[in-house]
This record gives sequence, structure tokens and C-alpha cells, in this order.
Amino acid sequence: MTAATTIAGLTVTPLRQIVDDRGAVLHMLRADEPEFGPFGECYFSQINPGIIKAWKRHRLQSQNIAVPVGRVRVVVFDEREQSPTKGMLDMVELGRPDNYVRMRIPPLLWYGFKCIATQPSLIANCVDTPHSPEESEVLGLEMLKQKRALNLLRDGSGRC
Amino acid sequence: MTAATTIAGLTVTPLRQIVDDRGAVLHMLRADEPEFGPFGECYFSQINPGIIKAWKRHRLQSQNIAVPVGRVRVVVFDEREQSPTKGMLDMVELGRPDNYVRMRIPPLLWYGFKCIATQPSLIANCVDTPHSPEESEVLGLEMLKQKRALNLLRDGSGRC
Repeated sequence: MTAATTIAGLTVTPLRQIVDDRGAVLHMLRADEPEFGPFGECYFSQINPGIIKAWKRHRLQSQNIAVPVGRVRVVVFDEREQSPTKGMLDMVELGRPDNYVRMRIPPLLWYGFKCIATQPSLIANCVDTPHSPEESEVLGLEMLKQKRALNLLRDGSGRC
Repeated sequence: MTAATTIAGLTVTPLRQIVDDRGAVLHMLRADEPEFGPFGECYFSQINPGIIKAWKRHRLQSQNIAVPVGRVRVVVFDEREQSPTKGMLDMVELGRPDNYVRMRIPPLLWYGFKCIATQPSLIANCVDTPHSPEESEVLGLEMLKQKRALNLLRDGSGRC
């Protein structure tokens, strides 16, 4: 069941894991799901322990991310002018077995990742348009307006 | 550049890896590539060291697989009645950094996997129809007509 978060349009959908002693089959995205939008591209981001990749936002593209290997903290900040949740922050820790979910990040939200596992983690991303450098923006770690976001990403606590 | 193999319709396409000291961005599949067919589903198969998953074939669905984590040996056998390469076997070892490729397995070919890394490996698969149990067949390890296929999968050598 897809669940809402504190940010409008940001959703989290539990994904099926079929585990046996040989390994596991891990669902990610099906074209016949109600949440499915167009398929643009599938790619992976491998992220080393302790590393932060932030901040990024897309003007047009939606992200659909899951973490099949390792554990990744995701922080999202809503700076959208017309949003009912403008100014809100959210944090989700993605990883197996307890939080193997697909997180949908709609356009215009700022987001960042931190690898919080002791091994390199893998973020899988199925986006709804193929990659185009013109439609995304990056912002330096310290440059986001909402300063609490960086503390939240760094240590999960949001200390100022 | 997509390359042919010894089996008609089985292709291998090198994928881009953008590596830095934080990790890597690993391409998988884009909707604007010439090789792109419909998008049906994306899922992962985690496979533990030494484990074999074989044999399987699909009547309708094409597989597009890549190995972003670990190393996996894939053996494919062509038993298609009308195929110009009927009776042929092929073997490819997928993994980073030297063989990060997308392998397209068209319908009606038998295939099997073995994890040949010391860590669990991850097979990513973008298939062109959503999963449906009716359109695939499984065959016990020893049951494939071409007996050499199992030796090839087990030890990469094809000894009888």
C-alpha cells in the first residue's frame, strides 16, 4: 500500500521480497501498477560508506528509488512555491529487510542521500524521462535554505 | 555498441560506468535507446556465492540483465526449432568493472546463472512484460538436453 509522507506527492510503497537460502527476488517497479508513470530510464547509484550525495532537484523528472543493497538515508526538502507542505523536511532510511520500499520523489523537491551502511550501497532509480542535464539543478551541501536538512542527512537527528 | 553472440538474438551491450571516489553511476536501460522494447517490469535477483539458479525459459518475455554488484556467470542454450543457431551454447560472465554490460535474452532460450563472486551478487532485470507465471518454464539442473551446459555453468569449462 502506497503511503503518504509529510511532503505532498512524496510517497513510499513497500516492495515484495521473496527470500530463500539461495538469495532473494526483489521487486522494484511494474508497468501494471497504479503508481506507474512512463518509463524513461533505469540506472544505479553506488555510494560508498559515509558518503553524502546532495542536493539535487529535477524540474520535470520524477524519481522512483529503492535500495536493494546496503542502507541509505534520504532527506527531502519542499521549497515549492505552491505546495501545501512548503518548508517541510522529511527523512527516510531505505534498505533491507525492514524498509525495502520504493520512494517516489516528484519534480521540484530537493533531495540528498547518505550511505549509512558499512558496505557500499546501491540505489536503483527508475525515472520517468531519460536523463537530460538541462532539467536538473545541483546545490552545494551547505547551500540549501533549510539548514536543518544537512544535519538531518549527516546524523539523522536534525540538530542545528 | 551492441554485439551479437554465438546465439541468434542474444546480444550484449556495454553500459556506461561513471566512477569517482564517492561511488559510481551505472547505466542500465534508457527508453530512447535503439535496443529499447516495451517496459514491463524491473526487479532484482540477489544470488549468494556459489549458488546456481537454472534452468529457465520464457515463451513471450525478453530479459535485459546487468550485474551492478558482484559477478555472475550466465549460460544460454538455444533449443528453438527454427533457429539458425539451434544447439548452440553461450557463456558470459557479467560484472564490474571489466564486463558491465546489458545482456538481452530473447524468448524461448534456456538460461541459468551462477554467482561466482565471494559476496552476494545482484542481477538487475528489466523485462518487456510484467511477470506472469504462465509464460515461463523451469527445468531441473540435470534435465537440460544439452548436458555440457551444466558443466559450463558449474565451472566455466564445459567439461563433460
